[in-house]
Amino acid sequence: MCRWAAYLGSPIYLEDIISRPGHSLVAQSQVATECKTSTNGDGFGVAWYDNRPEPGLYRDVYPAWSDTNLRALAHQVKSGLFLSHVRASTGSAISRNNCHPFAAGHWSFMHNGQVGGFETFRRYADMCIPDELYPHRKGATDSEVLFLLALKEGIDQDPLGAMERAVAKLESLSRDRGTTPHMRLSAALSDGQSLYAVRYSSDHIAPSLYYRWSESRQGWAVVSEPLEQEQDGWKQLPAGGFLTLSADRAEVSEFDPSRQVIDLNCPG
Amino acid sequence: MCRWAAYLGSPIYLEDIISRPGHSLVAQSQVATECKTSTNGDGFGVAWYDNRPEPGLYRDVYPAWSDTNLRALAHQVKSGLFLSHVRASTGSAISRNNCHPFAAGHWSFMHNGQVGGFETFRRYADMCIPDELYPHRKGATDSEVLFLLALKEGIDQDPLGAMERAVAKLESLSRDRGTTPHMRLSAALSDGQSLYAVRYSSDHIAPSLYYRWSESRQGWAVVSEPLEQEQDGWKQLPAGGFLTLSADRAEVSEFDPSRQVIDLNCPG
Amino acid sequence: MCRWAAYLGSPIYLEDIISRPGHSLVAQSQVATECKTSTNGDGFGVAWYDNRPEPGLYRDVYPAWSDTNLRALAHQVKSGLFLSHVRASTGSAISRNNCHPFAAGHWSFMHNGQVGGFETFRRYADMCIPDELYPHRKGATDSEVLFLLALKEGIDQDPLGAMERAVAKLESLSRDRGTTPHMRLSAALSDGQSLYAVRYSSDHIAPSLYYRWSESRQGWAVVSEPLEQEQDGWKQLPAGGFLTLSADRAEVSEFDPSRQVIDLNCPG
Amino acid sequence: MCRWAAYLGSPIYLEDIISRPGHSLVAQSQVATECKTSTNGDGFGVAWYDNRPEPGLYRDVYPAWSDTNLRALAHQVKSGLFLSHVRASTGSAISRNNCHPFAAGHWSFMHNGQVGGFETFRRYADMCIPDELYPHRKGATDSEVLFLLALKEGIDQDPLGAMERAVAKLESLSRDRGTTPHMRLSAALSDGQSLYAVRYSSDHIAPSLYYRWSESRQGWAVVSEPLEQEQDGWKQLPAGGFLTLSADRAEVSEFDPSRQVIDLNCPG
Repeated sequence: MCRWAAYLGSPIYLEDIISRPGHSLVAQSQVATECKTSTNGDGFGVAWYDNRPEPGLYRDVYPAWSDTNLRALAHQVKSGLFLSHVRASTGSAISRNNCHPFAAGHWSFMHNGQVGGFETFRRYADMCIPDELYPHRKGATDSEVLFLLALKEGIDQDPLGAMERAVAKLESLSRDRGTTPHMRLSAALSDGQSLYAVRYSSDHIAPSLYYRWSESRQGWAVVSEPLEQEQDGWKQLPAGGFLTLSADRAEVSEFDPSRQVIDLNCPG
Repeated sequence: MCRWAAYLGSPIYLEDIISRPGHSLVAQSQVATECKTSTNGDGFGVAWYDNRPEPGLYRDVYPAWSDTNLRALAHQVKSGLFLSHVRASTGSAISRNNCHPFAAGHWSFMHNGQVGGFETFRRYADMCIPDELYPHRKGATDSEVLFLLALKEGIDQDPLGAMERAVAKLESLSRDRGTTPHMRLSAALSDGQSLYAVRYSSDHIAPSLYYRWSESRQGWAVVSEPLEQEQDGWKQLPAGGFLTLSADRAEVSEFDPSRQVIDLNCPG
Repeated sequence: MCRWAAYLGSPIYLEDIISRPGHSLVAQSQVATECKTSTNGDGFGVAWYDNRPEPGLYRDVYPAWSDTNLRALAHQVKSGLFLSHVRASTGSAISRNNCHPFAAGHWSFMHNGQVGGFETFRRYADMCIPDELYPHRKGATDSEVLFLLALKEGIDQDPLGAMERAVAKLESLSRDRGTTPHMRLSAALSDGQSLYAVRYSSDHIAPSLYYRWSESRQGWAVVSEPLEQEQDGWKQLPAGGFLTLSADRAEVSEFDPSRQVIDLNCPG
Repeated sequence: MCRWAAYLGSPIYLEDIISRPGHSLVAQSQVATECKTSTNGDGFGVAWYDNRPEPGLYRDVYPAWSDTNLRALAHQVKSGLFLSHVRASTGSAISRNNCHPFAAGHWSFMHNGQVGGFETFRRYADMCIPDELYPHRKGATDSEVLFLLALKEGIDQDPLGAMERAVAKLESLSRDRGTTPHMRLSAALSDGQSLYAVRYSSDHIAPSLYYRWSESRQGWAVVSEPLEQEQDGWKQLPAGGFLTLSADRAEVSEFDPSRQVIDLNCPG
């Protein structure tokens, strides 16, 4: 399990999400309160949009709480759209390539959750990644596969549908070859314009996911856990919900992988 | 605060102390139970004696729980005398040079505790290190200064007296220039032959320190916290105690820095 | 391109190969003389056999010339059989998982060379790794695939034949989907008992590979470049040669992947 | 010896200096042509000014040529004033704290050169740093001491004079306690407004230092080696020269530490 926080709105310093709030992402890396693993010390990452269509990416394998570079970067860099993540490995190696967010072209993606028994069918999941996206398969996580499958499924044209198909594919692999729970998912993604988030579970336990509009910042925060513990206005995204945030509105849609017809072959 | 574990006896695999016991040092790096900071993820180190008079030294800045090199090394290397440590930084940088154990010549040293207000008089403490030992001053911790002062005070001839004088000097600096608590100390050190440990506090709260003879291993373990929680035979070293372990015996002496006459000048 | 050095014989300190000779492996990491890339600063590794059937493994992403842990480890550890490697990446990421040697069970493997166009057919090569070995596929190098294919092809029963079949498979993939030169190879491998080395090329340029018996050490060194530049007794392994070293003898066999009938399907 | 490059002008991507030119700083980290050590692979750093009076700082111990974070950061971040550096250690440890640039408040500083015999009088040099600046003494390099002494000597009011006094002090320490050459210096520094550079030597061999105005960029580059090898307009700063660059002009002043009266005591 991991913790993450994302932002869309008027440009703010990265540290205004990552390290300054009372229950900031860095604070959650030390003492998370809404997940099984209290310590998220197996690496971190931030993807931020600024001057380029593609995001900047800073990821490393140290605990977020002690990294001087992260502290300095988050203190200096302003962005109106960024994703940040702290990791608690559930098995795959501590490596920069396994740190979130993942980026490809102008898309970025980060994830908290699990695909049941992934390690036992990782080879089969890798085979589902098409040749043209395989150069982006740099690590060994289920999260990176999920992202690459969503890219393959047409995330540019239809983010919701592509995520549903990617989740359906991995959930199906887990049902065939893995273990329960087949899919637990709390994820955020962006194309550099909008910020999307999804919360879903194949059973009845979905990882936490909250969002909130800040009048003072003129921006949206989307997070694993509220950034201030006594703060009003945090809404929980319902399980089976897909959130689309633009500058001026939040829209919650139904997220239901089961309605998608997927090709069970790989690559399909 | 930090956690540590040391061993003297018939050669065993490093992992028999570092990672295999139920409450091994690596387990303590994730959930320590007898100190303020439950997580000790700011680096680790091991110093082991084998073919050379001087110890081998492997230290790194990652959490001990995730380091593949530590796991492989501890699985392969056997030693009859070693010191191992996991760190929770109380301020100084996360850097290999600030990881314990410290080594100089055939001596090794590791430490859990604090010297009150050290950062405010670090320059003055550095000045107390004589020129000939200054090349060993590689980091910025109070622990390294304590070790170098003990070397200066004649640790080869009189380990107990040298440690008392080194502690007295730093405690005196803290009284003059620092804050309370002036000195809290739980440390282990070795010359490659004997294993020494010391527990001391300038107030009434000394960090925990236990030791135990294992018949099955034919060896002594000295630790911050017992390696198995239901295991008999762990003795607590009393505060103000100095433990000397050799192959065939354990001796507890009084440790009283106040009986030492120290030169208040630096270098003195 | 990379540089490597291996040893089999009476136990010596790792540093006797890695850092002490005039043209040691660490010296070659700074100024290699027989390969295109003079600097081999993209990580290093050592696999050594001692108390266990499986090797110890220490790999990291720093240049070998500056790593204090490598220096201390090589100074302290003795072994009668070890493989050591410095890396110059030809494209895949600088990551511990991409550092040589690779280890699985009691086998270890390291490699210098290239499989032409590997990145363009990496997905297809990964598919050739059978499910049961896929948990060992941790990085993204051609070298790791070559090792895992050799394991699949029965390296325990027939090291020479298994290496031929593995090389034939990858060379065939490169002919179908990659670029010239299809295969250039200088590799060493061990099961913890014998030390094997192979030199081969699909064109007429095979990477350098030398070996030598040392009377004073009572052991064999096998290297990319001689460890002392003025030293007699270094023999070049001919291209198309497979070297088997045991305690008392060296045997050179023909290495000819083309005589193997391979299954062109994956997994085959 | 090390290599460095700095920029002042209209905001550009960091990569326009760091990695894109034919003989960029990253290229110089692999093959420098005007210094003794061709390879500068012992860490790197960049300090950039943007939204804050103080610079952002990203430093790490890897070779610059392989660091994915540096590449992504330099691709995304724009700045109108930045300093960047690649290191070849001449003895002190490979550690983030020993990587340039150094920063304190709104000042940043980087350095190529040497203070003869520094390691033999490092303790005495550390003593010359006043208490209030000692918290900034995090590493063990001569470069960091030089920077802190310049801060002590009034760099805010008089950058040229403060640098002269700091250099005079260290050169004097080297004459008393060190070895020849006592001082060789090529350095750049900034307060977030102007960019300063200095070239000096106590003998007749000063490290190289060039600068150039770019019409297309509308900015100044100051470098160890020209960024394009066939490019016109690079001027060499004379030895004993102090360069002050502002938005609209370049001024070269005489740099002569010998005209300063310095206090030979420490702290003086």
